[in-house]
Amino acid sequence: MINLQESLDIINREIQTIQYPQNPAGLYEPIAYLLAMKGKKIRPALTLLACNLYRDDVETAIRPALAWEIFHNFTLMHDDVMDKADLRRGQPTVHKKWNENAAILSGDATLILSYVFMTDSAMENLKPLLDLFSTTAAEICEGQQYDMEFERRTDVSEQEYIEMIRLKTAVMFGACFKTGAIIGGADKKDLQNLYDFGINLGIAFQIKDDLLDVYGNPGVFGKKTGGDILCNKKTYLLINALNRADKPERENLLHWLGRNDNPQEKIIVVRNIYDRLAIPDIANASIQVFYEKALMAFHAISVSESRKEILKDVAKDIIEREF
Amino acid sequence: MINLQESLDIINREIQTIQYPQNPAGLYEPIAYLLAMKGKKIRPALTLLACNLYRDDVETAIRPALAWEIFHNFTLMHDDVMDKADLRRGQPTVHKKWNENAAILSGDATLILSYVFMTDSAMENLKPLLDLFSTTAAEICEGQQYDMEFERRTDVSEQEYIEMIRLKTAVMFGACFKTGAIIGGADKKDLQNLYDFGINLGIAFQIKDDLLDVYGNPGVFGKKTGGDILCNKKTYLLINALNRADKPERENLLHWLGRNDNPQEKIIVVRNIYDRLAIPDIANASIQVFYEKALMAFHAISVSESRKEILKDVAKDIIEREF
Repeated sequence: MINLQESLDIINREIQTIQYPQNPAGLYEPIAYLLAMKGKKIRPALTLLACNLYRDDVETAIRPALAWEIFHNFTLMHDDVMDKADLRRGQPTVHKKWNENAAILSGDATLILSYVFMTDSAMENLKPLLDLFSTTAAEICEGQQYDMEFERRTDVSEQEYIEMIRLKTAVMFGACFKTGAIIGGADKKDLQNLYDFGINLGIAFQIKDDLLDVYGNPGVFGKKTGGDILCNKKTYLLINALNRADKPERENLLHWLGRNDNPQEKIIVVRNIYDRLAIPDIANASIQVFYEKALMAFHAISVSESRKEILKDVAKDIIEREF
Repeated sequence: MINLQESLDIINREIQTIQYPQNPAGLYEPIAYLLAMKGKKIRPALTLLACNLYRDDVETAIRPALAWEIFHNFTLMHDDVMDKADLRRGQPTVHKKWNENAAILSGDATLILSYVFMTDSAMENLKPLLDLFSTTAAEICEGQQYDMEFERRTDVSEQEYIEMIRLKTAVMFGACFKTGAIIGGADKKDLQNLYDFGINLGIAFQIKDDLLDVYGNPGVFGKKTGGDILCNKKTYLLINALNRADKPERENLLHWLGRNDNPQEKIIVVRNIYDRLAIPDIANASIQVFYEKALMAFHAISVSESRKEILKDVAKDIIEREF
């Protein structure tokens, strides 16, 4: 069995061996640029760990696992254009370093490349893997669409928000696990259990992400806190605050959302509103609910407890992380 | 056997039956909008005709054929953003009717949808079909990249131009034929012959398209002539004119490329330069060369001449068309 670090090592080693065509450089350099960025590459590592539940040799899961990382990079390249983001992991985004057209077209080529990697599977697995891949890919586009629509709204319900992050973030966790399980030869019930495990873990992961962006320790979290507040991102925290504030507090919050003249004060004021409304407690409770759901699905997986330990610890780490 | 019109009828009928998810409407409406536009939908019809060379029942080729039409629509949606085109077949482009983000994200969803249709094939054909699909899709991105790079250059050689249209336009013709042939059960040699047939026909088709844009009969061609001249598009005609003009004529041509103040005169002046340099003759000769190459590959296909007649006529129509 491999642990998380060994799985990440395999993924990082394999990513470095990807050969891109030399020409046209303008098409392929942005793909290599983004994939070479530091980042934890947790998603493909999860695919290998899920496969490893069922078989010791995870070799045949590597290319499909990389498909997910490449696909994730496609979403980053296009999302950064749509969100007009200048930086990604501290470096210029593709459309800033090159231009918008480069980010659109190289993003398209990245999506196609992800299918090339997913297609590199045994014939008997091709159909289930590709069906899962396309279904999930479409759902992630739906999630991004809702996310963009939510930016123009102040009446998003918690339920709508959870559905949005389910699509935009969580289905990829579910699908990464399921991909590994398909290749590992899991039965139908276990495929569903691993998928449900991923979905609920993914939702908890995203709420935790929203929480850390405001309350994380900058030294540990690795980036400045308050970024979501400054760009008025509709996070779990903001949505709940808007829904739970009384009229004066809600108006105060909306007033500060409209201001961009004093970033430091904006972060402090909004965080104080969150505190008054006990939003961190509400978020933590919600994380716990989805984590429990994830564990229930995980518990139902018909693999020996000793084989399941590594993935169980990974889930715990994702939920308890401070970075 | 079915003829071209019957093949087109099947395609148009099937396109109307495609069901899109209801939500989010902002993601799926642009896809339906573009696919519902009038247009000849020749590419998927070619897939059915190629399949029909080998088997009477083309039913199983319909979904993969539609994959090509959907993929074609994905390229249109993103190319229109990159080219900042306002109109497509006389109607507003997606990014004009909605916005750029909608065109990017709906384009992504269109590309994913095309894979869904291509994956709807018998298991034994999945790998060759998907390998062909992804390889061709990546080449088409490469072609678009070269096309954009050529816009900033005045020294593009004829060879570079042919390679660009091979990638951007012709490989899809080759791949459409090959898709039908794979599903029809053609042997390896025939797959290559049909692919080569399509490549050469596709190149001839594009040069003809460039020619018709300047010299077509507007009443028959269905759109105003001179559009490529007005937007300084690097066509087969312009590239050859730039390469064949003497210094004063080349400078005159470059001067007019830089002017946008008198569109009617610009079209007339540039067309006169083309005429003086015998560019239409050169273009027609080139069309003939690629058409002959296409026919040589077609001739080598090991199917009875009677079964081949329909496709042979289609190729002739494509080359001799005045629209």
